[in-house]
Amino acid sequence: MQQRNWKKQLYEVIYEADTAAGKWFDIVLLFLIGVSIALVMLESVASIEAHYGDLFLVLEWIITILFSIEYILRIVCIKKPLKYVFSFYGIIDFISTIPLYLSYFFVGSHVLIAFRALRLLRVFRILKLVRFLGEAAQLKEAIRASRTKILVFIYTVLIISVILGTIMYLVEGAESGFTSIPRSIYWTIVTLTTVGYGDIAPATNLGQFLASLIMILGYGIIAVPTGIVTVEFAKQSKVQTNTQVCSNCHKDDHRDEAEYCYNCGEKL
Amino acid sequence: MQQRNWKKQLYEVIYEADTAAGKWFDIVLLFLIGVSIALVMLESVASIEAHYGDLFLVLEWIITILFSIEYILRIVCIKKPLKYVFSFYGIIDFISTIPLYLSYFFVGSHVLIAFRALRLLRVFRILKLVRFLGEAAQLKEAIRASRTKILVFIYTVLIISVILGTIMYLVEGAESGFTSIPRSIYWTIVTLTTVGYGDIAPATNLGQFLASLIMILGYGIIAVPTGIVTVEFAKQSKVQTNTQVCSNCHKDDHRDEAEYCYNCGEKL
Amino acid sequence: MQQRNWKKQLYEVIYEADTAAGKWFDIVLLFLIGVSIALVMLESVASIEAHYGDLFLVLEWIITILFSIEYILRIVCIKKPLKYVFSFYGIIDFISTIPLYLSYFFVGSHVLIAFRALRLLRVFRILKLVRFLGEAAQLKEAIRASRTKILVFIYTVLIISVILGTIMYLVEGAESGFTSIPRSIYWTIVTLTTVGYGDIAPATNLGQFLASLIMILGYGIIAVPTGIVTVEFAKQSKVQTNTQVCSNCHKDDHRDEAEYCYNCGEKL
Amino acid sequence: MQQRNWKKQLYEVIYEADTAAGKWFDIVLLFLIGVSIALVMLESVASIEAHYGDLFLVLEWIITILFSIEYILRIVCIKKPLKYVFSFYGIIDFISTIPLYLSYFFVGSHVLIAFRALRLLRVFRILKLVRFLGEAAQLKEAIRASRTKILVFIYTVLIISVILGTIMYLVEGAESGFTSIPRSIYWTIVTLTTVGYGDIAPATNLGQFLASLIMILGYGIIAVPTGIVTVEFAKQSKVQTNTQVCSNCHKDDHRDEAEYCYNCGEKL
Repeated sequence: MQQRNWKKQLYEVIYEADTAAGKWFDIVLLFLIGVSIALVMLESVASIEAHYGDLFLVLEWIITILFSIEYILRIVCIKKPLKYVFSFYGIIDFISTIPLYLSYFFVGSHVLIAFRALRLLRVFRILKLVRFLGEAAQLKEAIRASRTKILVFIYTVLIISVILGTIMYLVEGAESGFTSIPRSIYWTIVTLTTVGYGDIAPATNLGQFLASLIMILGYGIIAVPTGIVTVEFAKQSKVQTNTQVCSNCHKDDHRDEAEYCYNCGEKL
Repeated sequence: MQQRNWKKQLYEVIYEADTAAGKWFDIVLLFLIGVSIALVMLESVASIEAHYGDLFLVLEWIITILFSIEYILRIVCIKKPLKYVFSFYGIIDFISTIPLYLSYFFVGSHVLIAFRALRLLRVFRILKLVRFLGEAAQLKEAIRASRTKILVFIYTVLIISVILGTIMYLVEGAESGFTSIPRSIYWTIVTLTTVGYGDIAPATNLGQFLASLIMILGYGIIAVPTGIVTVEFAKQSKVQTNTQVCSNCHKDDHRDEAEYCYNCGEKL
Repeated sequence: MQQRNWKKQLYEVIYEADTAAGKWFDIVLLFLIGVSIALVMLESVASIEAHYGDLFLVLEWIITILFSIEYILRIVCIKKPLKYVFSFYGIIDFISTIPLYLSYFFVGSHVLIAFRALRLLRVFRILKLVRFLGEAAQLKEAIRASRTKILVFIYTVLIISVILGTIMYLVEGAESGFTSIPRSIYWTIVTLTTVGYGDIAPATNLGQFLASLIMILGYGIIAVPTGIVTVEFAKQSKVQTNTQVCSNCHKDDHRDEAEYCYNCGEKL
Repeated sequence: MQQRNWKKQLYEVIYEADTAAGKWFDIVLLFLIGVSIALVMLESVASIEAHYGDLFLVLEWIITILFSIEYILRIVCIKKPLKYVFSFYGIIDFISTIPLYLSYFFVGSHVLIAFRALRLLRVFRILKLVRFLGEAAQLKEAIRASRTKILVFIYTVLIISVILGTIMYLVEGAESGFTSIPRSIYWTIVTLTTVGYGDIAPATNLGQFLASLIMILGYGIIAVPTGIVTVEFAKQSKVQTNTQVCSNCHKDDHRDEAEYCYNCGEKL
């Protein structure tokens, strides 16, 4: 009975944010994640790493051990540990904690840095708990609703890029940087999205003419995702219908102010 | 009678996607198109072509022969072959199949690669059959409806580009890359569409001042196509309410499918 | 009487587009403008000018003489010649016709080329006559209505650019191209509008950090003009109110379907 | 009594713009700010500073003294001087006036230039007084209302930038300019916001492939702030109709100021 209580209290601290202890836990965690990400960044700057490399390693070990303890506690105090372990955040927690241990065995495992950067994703969980992201729900819903349209759009953009990229490869050739079709397609995407690095740029007259057409096309095309998302937002932020279901005909999606079912006239 | 049946079955497999065979035919075709486009791309990378050139040629011959068979079957099993041959997809099918045969007679016909890339367009036909693109209809309709407005807009952008390009040519001159008026117009479009390669960039103070004005202009102008398309989308996707008024409580703005007043339950 | 008639007929041909002759006149004029602009462009390409310079000069003289005749005829056949001469298009006609004559007296007057490019603006008059630009009215109205908001917006962008440009000048210094505050402001506008040439780019860590902030700011700011214009478009394309004026109370702006004045109840 | 009057009159001239003197005061102040900002800019151009450096110093001293007098007068004539001194504009006034005095003691205090550029902010106060910015209120309101959504959006963009920047650092390495993770994140933001300097650009095939994905992502993401702001604008500027229903003909959707039914002329 007492052990149950202990686990329950731990659960409240780790997984919830209603108690003072729970809030402190989240704040400490946020701080540790921040320090950890800062370490990943600073280690990559050669001049800083040369001076403070040893300090960074010590700090990284401390943080890794703290995250490991947190990971174990999360498993201990939850009722269905396996469900947590194989959940999205469970996996993120695991692969963002383990890199340092692995680097102990496999010297110089460079790629593991990326996994440590994933710790940043854990911030979303904490924010979710404190309900800061309540505002984000509407955004997410709007993007979700326009998912299919955006996919169709991206697919069309990709096809256009492949065909225009091939044409530009034939027109420009290797001298101005269009050394292969994949590279030409890369250039077309750079141009169509109005990024325009300039690492590859058309040099011939015909190439510059075609490039101008692609730019104007891209300039017009950018209107499409904007239009899609804007309309979705507009729908979302209009007077909401609620999720009431008519007890007589089971129709849902009633207006908020509705008092009678619009389908069968039953009082709601 | 039997021959008719045979043709009809073939038609169902090739042109439709309701039967299992028809679906498999589409999937195989999609796969072949994918491999074919991958070949076009990889052939253009000099280092890969040097190693696997022979393999690529064999694969390309296999795919070309398969596409040729498909093209003949399409003609055989349709009732009005000429209508297919001169349809949009009929022409695409033809000119995307023939390049390899032509390269047999005309050695080194480089330009034919572009025709092979057109195979990608065939993907649209397959997707149309499986009704995946149902979502795209609304997008297409919105773009079609705002066609005239967008043309007027593009025409205005072009006139602005020509005049500003001429002025920049006079202001900057050949040293900073503005070697001719067409090239200056190219630069103006690069700037106005916010692409900004940097292969040509103003070096004089006056040139940089004018460039700043052009950028801010372009920044504002991008709002126009976005506005046009968004409004069209909004029109398309508006959930319709009608202007019926309840005879009992005088409430209006009922859904189109409503049969009872949502406020008092009176039959509409 | 007869002279009057002759003038009237000429007026119909030149200023209107209802008769067959009037339409032909417009088409010939469009063609001449097109050739003229092409000449301006080709002359500026050194390699082409070297070969065809003499031909270009002859063609330019022919076109200039034709435009001169047109200009005189326009003055002759109109009732109030002075009003035309000092109208927007009257001035454009004059300064786009005169450059060649001036170059006869002042050898090498380079700047005059820009005036010749202004001929392109005359295209708008022709298009206006054939009522092609009817669609453009709505666009123009929307932009006109949001004029004040857009000016406030551009003014804010400029102030932000000056302050951020000054800060970047202090942070980066001359080595990475930030040689003076005006040039830094130019760079800030290049960045804020997401053009990004790369002719000037921050090299220090602090500079790159500030640049990142400016980019994200610019990325968000672009939403503002788009929002303004979209909302204006939406207003314009909604159910229109008409210009009827109530005979009783002189209120205007009635709905199209209105049968009674909304202000005094008078029948419209 | 007289002194009071004198102070009151001064207050009206300095803080208000209803009297002729008040308007002239604002115009002179606007002019001085303009000259002052122009000085800051021109001083930074080495070639101009070399010639006119002495003149600039004299002008700067004159303007600084005028601004000092203005600052003292503002304190003298207001009822609660401390409230002004610690207000937003009070602080701006102080730190934009003091740099020249400080440079007298600390030779070569370069950073103080930035403070002088802050004078530009004072323009906003003057414009506020003459009610020019009335139009801006709606813009500000719309941006304020979508503040939380935009913060969530920017936060998401930053997290995406950190993770993608880390991956690009691992993929590309130091040769193509991705020398550290912070620099890679800088590049990711440059790409995601479609700025695209080209000072750092991916050179490997995998890097260019990932860059293409980031660009298309950025191209789609730009729709989000646009959508948010547009919907807010639309809400703000909606022409209000009310829900009154005519007691005679049951027509609804009347204008707010309507006193009679637009359909049947019945008094509402």
